[in-house]
Amino acid sequence: MSAARAKSKAGRFIVVDGPDGVGKSTQVQLLVEQLDMRGVHTLSLREPGGTTAGEIIRSLLLEKRQEKLTAVAEAFLFQAARAQLVAEVIRPALARGTWVVCDRFTLSTLVYQGDAGHVSARAIQQLSELSTGGLKPDLYLVLWAATTVCVGRRAEREADRMESKGARFLRDVSGAYKRHAERGRGKYKLVDAAGPIEEVRARLWKHVERLLP
Amino acid sequence: MSAARAKSKAGRFIVVDGPDGVGKSTQVQLLVEQLDMRGVHTLSLREPGGTTAGEIIRSLLLEKRQEKLTAVAEAFLFQAARAQLVAEVIRPALARGTWVVCDRFTLSTLVYQGDAGHVSARAIQQLSELSTGGLKPDLYLVLWAATTVCVGRRAEREADRMESKGARFLRDVSGAYKRHAERGRGKYKLVDAAGPIEEVRARLWKHVERLLP
Repeated sequence: MSAARAKSKAGRFIVVDGPDGVGKSTQVQLLVEQLDMRGVHTLSLREPGGTTAGEIIRSLLLEKRQEKLTAVAEAFLFQAARAQLVAEVIRPALARGTWVVCDRFTLSTLVYQGDAGHVSARAIQQLSELSTGGLKPDLYLVLWAATTVCVGRRAEREADRMESKGARFLRDVSGAYKRHAERGRGKYKLVDAAGPIEEVRARLWKHVERLLP
Repeated sequence: MSAARAKSKAGRFIVVDGPDGVGKSTQVQLLVEQLDMRGVHTLSLREPGGTTAGEIIRSLLLEKRQEKLTAVAEAFLFQAARAQLVAEVIRPALARGTWVVCDRFTLSTLVYQGDAGHVSARAIQQLSELSTGGLKPDLYLVLWAATTVCVGRRAEREADRMESKGARFLRDVSGAYKRHAERGRGKYKLVDAAGPIEEVRARLWKHVERLLP
């Protein structure tokens, strides 16, 4: 098989990340539907999760009774779930030509356990290098809206352990997402997530459309 | 409080490590009893475990149905349990003057996921630095006996997921423990674990006795 052929067969890897309540899961669903209408077979995943071990880790991380977990332990748990998801699900899917859209990825760990949890950013980047085995998304979308907007959007569902850390934590997370996305323009695409769902969908799609053959 | 006073109050941290079946849990129990007879208040721990999160991680790692876990995911899970154990249990115990004897620690990850699981040793050492926050044992004992001895000793109990990886894996683990202990003499104390329980106990005690005031 030629390199060009191998390239055309491989699926694309898209990440949708951002603070809690910004509308990631809604937009991921809309994005997958739109790709499907364009005839692109797409797998939708969320982090942490997507594997048997990953779902157990997810429940461990988001259960409210685990209040004593340190930020370092959290970082390791997220990376464990990621390592398993990349090896068991994402790489095989991309290899057989399936596109993958993932709700959260490496930037979440950098923001939540790094910026907001005070674990060294350099250490977290080393962990991410190991957990992903160097796999980089073809498109890393960062949805962003002011904390008041996010808090309003998620008011309808019950907060989990990560979401219950208080206003200071939310502000740290929000600020960090924006800062990383603005400073790392080659790596991340910052998408304004304020306004009606349909408008946000259209903004996301402009970026995704460029990946279509 | 003077530095000398602080030093005299702090507990000592002892690790007993080595391949499956070498007799670690038996020797840890005997060691804790002997320390107790000498009036030393001692806490006995095992890795992974010792915290609520750690015990959930332990069951995830040792359950046979989790056969697909990659060595990288395993390494992250062991380190998550370790980070939580060090922060929540070991450091507070040492600070209040309690001695800690732990069944397995950082060398286990280096051997099982590094040497036998082919994750980079350098990466594992970086993870351990982060999970322990730089905490080093006062005494790191490595029990060692030939694989045939270990297999015979553990024949009475059912093998868990880590123990079921086959003869090649057992040989890799055994060889790696011996090699690390021989090369890292400043860091590890290699203890011959062949022969009767009582003889092994006496060999271990010679090392531990030196830590007593």
